[in-house]
Amino acid sequence: MAKLYFRYSAMNAGKSTAMLQVAHNYEERNMQIALFTAAIDDRHSVGTVASRLGVTRSAEIFNVDTDFSQLFSNRIVACILIDEAQFLSPEQVKQLHILAHQKNLPVICYGLRADFLGMPFPGSAYLLALADDLEEMKTICLCGKKATMNARFNAAGLREVSGEQIVIGGNSLYLAMCAKCYYAAKTT
Amino acid sequence: MAKLYFRYSAMNAGKSTAMLQVAHNYEERNMQIALFTAAIDDRHSVGTVASRLGVTRSAEIFNVDTDFSQLFSNRIVACILIDEAQFLSPEQVKQLHILAHQKNLPVICYGLRADFLGMPFPGSAYLLALADDLEEMKTICLCGKKATMNARFNAAGLREVSGEQIVIGGNSLYLAMCAKCYYAAKTT
Amino acid sequence: MAKLYFRYSAMNAGKSTAMLQVAHNYEERNMQIALFTAAIDDRHSVGTVASRLGVTRSAEIFNVDTDFSQLFSNRIVACILIDEAQFLSPEQVKQLHILAHQKNLPVICYGLRADFLGMPFPGSAYLLALADDLEEMKTICLCGKKATMNARFNAAGLREVSGEQIVIGGNSLYLAMCAKCYYAAKTT
Amino acid sequence: MAKLYFRYSAMNAGKSTAMLQVAHNYEERNMQIALFTAAIDDRHSVGTVASRLGVTRSAEIFNVDTDFSQLFSNRIVACILIDEAQFLSPEQVKQLHILAHQKNLPVICYGLRADFLGMPFPGSAYLLALADDLEEMKTICLCGKKATMNARFNAAGLREVSGEQIVIGGNSLYLAMCAKCYYAAKTT
Repeated sequence: MAKLYFRYSAMNAGKSTAMLQVAHNYEERNMQIALFTAAIDDRHSVGTVASRLGVTRSAEIFNVDTDFSQLFSNRIVACILIDEAQFLSPEQVKQLHILAHQKNLPVICYGLRADFLGMPFPGSAYLLALADDLEEMKTICLCGKKATMNARFNAAGLREVSGEQIVIGGNSLYLAMCAKCYYAAKTT
Repeated sequence: MAKLYFRYSAMNAGKSTAMLQVAHNYEERNMQIALFTAAIDDRHSVGTVASRLGVTRSAEIFNVDTDFSQLFSNRIVACILIDEAQFLSPEQVKQLHILAHQKNLPVICYGLRADFLGMPFPGSAYLLALADDLEEMKTICLCGKKATMNARFNAAGLREVSGEQIVIGGNSLYLAMCAKCYYAAKTT
Repeated sequence: MAKLYFRYSAMNAGKSTAMLQVAHNYEERNMQIALFTAAIDDRHSVGTVASRLGVTRSAEIFNVDTDFSQLFSNRIVACILIDEAQFLSPEQVKQLHILAHQKNLPVICYGLRADFLGMPFPGSAYLLALADDLEEMKTICLCGKKATMNARFNAAGLREVSGEQIVIGGNSLYLAMCAKCYYAAKTT
Repeated sequence: MAKLYFRYSAMNAGKSTAMLQVAHNYEERNMQIALFTAAIDDRHSVGTVASRLGVTRSAEIFNVDTDFSQLFSNRIVACILIDEAQFLSPEQVKQLHILAHQKNLPVICYGLRADFLGMPFPGSAYLLALADDLEEMKTICLCGKKATMNARFNAAGLREVSGEQIVIGGNSLYLAMCAKCYYAAKTT
């Protein structure tokens, strides 16, 4: 009866804020949650979820070696919350899907769908394919329309149209855009 | 091309937090917003939106006399955000619907759908009927399921099954519940 | 664990087709359903659900006197499907909500949100306020955008801006429109 | 302003019916549409979309060589509709995404998310990552819950837990299941 949720958006929509609110909602009712973020995220000290609204709290970290099946084989929580879920591996997404459906343990993942080239993150592809509930969190493009894409700019402010999928550590390098602006700006 | 949005939930799902995040998203892009809350809400000093996560900011207030058509006949903003939108009148909802579609001005309303008896607030009935986009913000019942109803309890902790629709000023008197628990508890 | 669903749209989006498909999905799995339409609908012989794609089947009818609580006090079905659900009374919506949550009986309602003046149907206001799951079925305006409003025209082809809420019997008198076109055309 | 839509579901939810209804909605307003299905689908003569409700119509076919950018470089339609969209290539999904956002041409794709092993189809992974609008079409498991997975059975009725991703031509070999039943039955 529990579900695997994937709440996705472009960069800077407020995913961390939303996750901290859900954590609060559970804890306000004296329910215990497990809160994870990706070890890869070094924007903040490892193990911190920080909202751009100014709210922060510590979190457990996951990396490529984390085995969620094992972690929750005996541990009882009311909900698992995962930030930066685009960095989950496909195998980890399957573990979480099975925890939801065989252990009746709700799992709520927050993350991006695709990288700066519009290519799905491997973990996101599995979250999108398996989640019982997909919810978009909206943010806006500079033009005012809904942003769905993530453009990346180098330190000199130039648009990148090739390169490694993962370069974390500087939000300022990414810009959420609507697809129209994303394609229009691509050649510039 | 602009839309009227209604983001609804039961009590204490995090509507104010979500609204403050959206305000932040606009302002981060140097877009100006108009932020309203209901004058009827005396939980905080009039004209304050306060998130249970601890974030607060001041807001314009609306009451039954507010004429949104007139207010925005010349004023230019990128978005109108309205908290406690269940207290809008049907006429005000129509004004906002027209602003979205005739002035191309996005309007995002946050509020409850129904009162403690399950009866739609008049403004919410119009928001639900006219909004271009309905989005549910989820929170949980004590049983762990999604809460959709708002139960009310008096100062002695007893469930109320009749009374005035609007009694603001004490969150502790309301409890978000799933419908199953709401009906099960109704006679106690 | 069962839910009350409201799948709403403007006129002629394909609500009856969708309902007949759901009925088929259940019956294909040898699950029995109860299928209702409004007695008020005299487009077809009373008790018929007819899709504009050409598929039809007979249905039970409901009118203002139908007591769903009593009808399903002993009768066992896998799902209740209701077409033209905007004609339910608020009381009937409450009965269906209780059947879903106290008898674990899924109820899926299909209908309009608002009348030709943009005023919510009484039953729709309650469905929108109580349903566990709101889903929009999309159709298009002549301009190509999503239609959310229902304009009504008299036999001479003139737009009606006042009159009775319910005039069934001629689809040709209604036109699904986006709100922008709806307001633009209102004065003509 | 146009969008790329992906309407996904498990097997036998009624995707083809829904697509034929949308085609009807456009044509009823004298708007021309382009209707595609996968060449790989040999359930029906190639180039036919057939609903389990009994409605059928002919369709253009796409295969791995179809270049949608070229096909619609000059051709004007109000909407592109694509059935069996899980068989699109990632490159074709990008072409369609660009048509929506650079040519303002709405594209509505219907398809599965994942194969019988829970692995995303390559085209579906891109549709899920890029679509402006994701909508789930629901169907039920034999247990009555929402089905999200597709189990495959061989001619002898035995569950398959390995094998080729694509075996079209027999709906009877696939069964839509909820994840709980899918995993419970996996070892049998």
